[in-house]
Amino acid sequence: MREFDLIGRLLRPLARQAKESLGLEDDAAVLAVAPDRELVATLDMMAAGRHYLDGDDPALVARKLVRVNLSDLAAMGATARGILLGYAARGDLDEDAARRFVEGLGRDLEHFSLALLGGDTISQARGEVFSLTALGEVPKGEALRRCGARAGDLLYLSGTLGDAPLGLAALKGELARREAWIERFYLPSPRLSLGQRVRPIAHAAIDVSDGLVADAGHMARTSGVRLVIDRARLPLSADTCRLLAEQPEWWTRVLTGGDDYELLLAVPPEGRDDLMRAAQAARTPLAWIGRVEAGEGVTVRDEAGRALSFAHPGFVH
Amino acid sequence: MREFDLIGRLLRPLARQAKESLGLEDDAAVLAVAPDRELVATLDMMAAGRHYLDGDDPALVARKLVRVNLSDLAAMGATARGILLGYAARGDLDEDAARRFVEGLGRDLEHFSLALLGGDTISQARGEVFSLTALGEVPKGEALRRCGARAGDLLYLSGTLGDAPLGLAALKGELARREAWIERFYLPSPRLSLGQRVRPIAHAAIDVSDGLVADAGHMARTSGVRLVIDRARLPLSADTCRLLAEQPEWWTRVLTGGDDYELLLAVPPEGRDDLMRAAQAARTPLAWIGRVEAGEGVTVRDEAGRALSFAHPGFVH
Repeated sequence: MREFDLIGRLLRPLARQAKESLGLEDDAAVLAVAPDRELVATLDMMAAGRHYLDGDDPALVARKLVRVNLSDLAAMGATARGILLGYAARGDLDEDAARRFVEGLGRDLEHFSLALLGGDTISQARGEVFSLTALGEVPKGEALRRCGARAGDLLYLSGTLGDAPLGLAALKGELARREAWIERFYLPSPRLSLGQRVRPIAHAAIDVSDGLVADAGHMARTSGVRLVIDRARLPLSADTCRLLAEQPEWWTRVLTGGDDYELLLAVPPEGRDDLMRAAQAARTPLAWIGRVEAGEGVTVRDEAGRALSFAHPGFVH
Repeated sequence: MREFDLIGRLLRPLARQAKESLGLEDDAAVLAVAPDRELVATLDMMAAGRHYLDGDDPALVARKLVRVNLSDLAAMGATARGILLGYAARGDLDEDAARRFVEGLGRDLEHFSLALLGGDTISQARGEVFSLTALGEVPKGEALRRCGARAGDLLYLSGTLGDAPLGLAALKGELARREAWIERFYLPSPRLSLGQRVRPIAHAAIDVSDGLVADAGHMARTSGVRLVIDRARLPLSADTCRLLAEQPEWWTRVLTGGDDYELLLAVPPEGRDDLMRAAQAARTPLAWIGRVEAGEGVTVRDEAGRALSFAHPGFVH
């Protein structure tokens, strides 16, 4: 069983740039953290047949794994430092697939100026599972949290909503293919620059991974407030707009589907101008979608002001 | 699919003590690192059917997962700060098994004064896979490495060698059961206290996870030296001693079997007294097992001084 030797050899160059990785020769990575900073650490897993389809391009799987983790750092307003990778390969390793995975990983590590700091490769009889730990940092005491939303805050959402879950639906044959949707499903854009820039402005932030309704629910619950979202204000891509005009039943998937990895922000009204400047500097579109009120839970209102209800608020990973 | 809700609920109390976990309510954990310290991070995975047997007590699986990761920190001379857990459960979650896992995890986190800082729980159709990231710290610039061994250094090994691989053999029915072996297989003792105390004394350290011959090989290769080990000096438990006296063919398993998680240290001769004091303070037995020479590779000599050879130097995880 030498398959992980191959993976280890392929991964080694991805660590070369970073002295923190110790060249992957030791049992652990060692990182200095500046005295005015704190370390931010997150771990996300992805499994074949659950978070991606069995025939998916391994390069895209690797890149999504990186991006999903970076999105967690973005939601905290953190900068990214590096990653640890856990690669549980199938015993009957497909060498080409491993090469493609490492290629994709390397491409995104370069894109985000990150190094591979360490990790583990195991082989096992069953399906592939990947685990990634992303390490980042924030100025001391300034991490953005989910729990800071206050009544009176305005709600903003970055990018567009729904493309990723519609991309998944298209991949499954439930919808006609739109390449833009599918690309968004495979390659979310972690909003790192936006997260860092809004850190001093926003009261609360969360990334939309489980679905807007579910993630807004997390913010509402931890903040002890009610979130009211106007469906008509939600930012949509042209493809999604067209679909919803013709088949409004897809609204549920857009609102609860998850995988968009956009940032939902709660911002005090007096922060609005700073927020717009931050979004511009981060080159990230930002739409006003609702407000925070006293109370609890999440209400999404349709164009007539009626509250919508959802049997399943979000995707369960 | 709400199975991970159960796991999440069970895990939450393990994070309550640590403000760094943010109560597991956010996307990431936030840790302060003192200005004179560096962060140490490691990730190890375990899979059903590969690193443990399918019917194994999930509490023991959890505890081994913690200990295997802490052993990596011990080898760097680090203190442990906390962990991130990745739990890829089977879709048809066995609730009792999940409860037992979290119970075992909680027990060891308490034992090692560690907190659960974050992580991810996913469900998937195939076998269970666990991933753990352990975070620790060392004084700046003082992490113990594998690569520092020099010709003239003495080699030391903590604890006893071979109990864990013999325990696995017993579990598989290849050997008569000895409870002490089996316990060592399930519950290695990460040598954290020893690692911290020998950090200023030793030139190099590695934990024996793949097998003594393989891990000594890692130290030899990264240090650019030759390691010569005298088999007669290896510290053995009474059970192992008895077995080897009767069935010397088990020597190979003892030397290459892995899973012992003892520390192999390279120490300059003038550090010997300090080393003995450190071992005493850490209450960890330490045996002199050989020396470092110029050259490359690992030589294990038998009682007559003949070099032994091994078809497979170690366990491939």
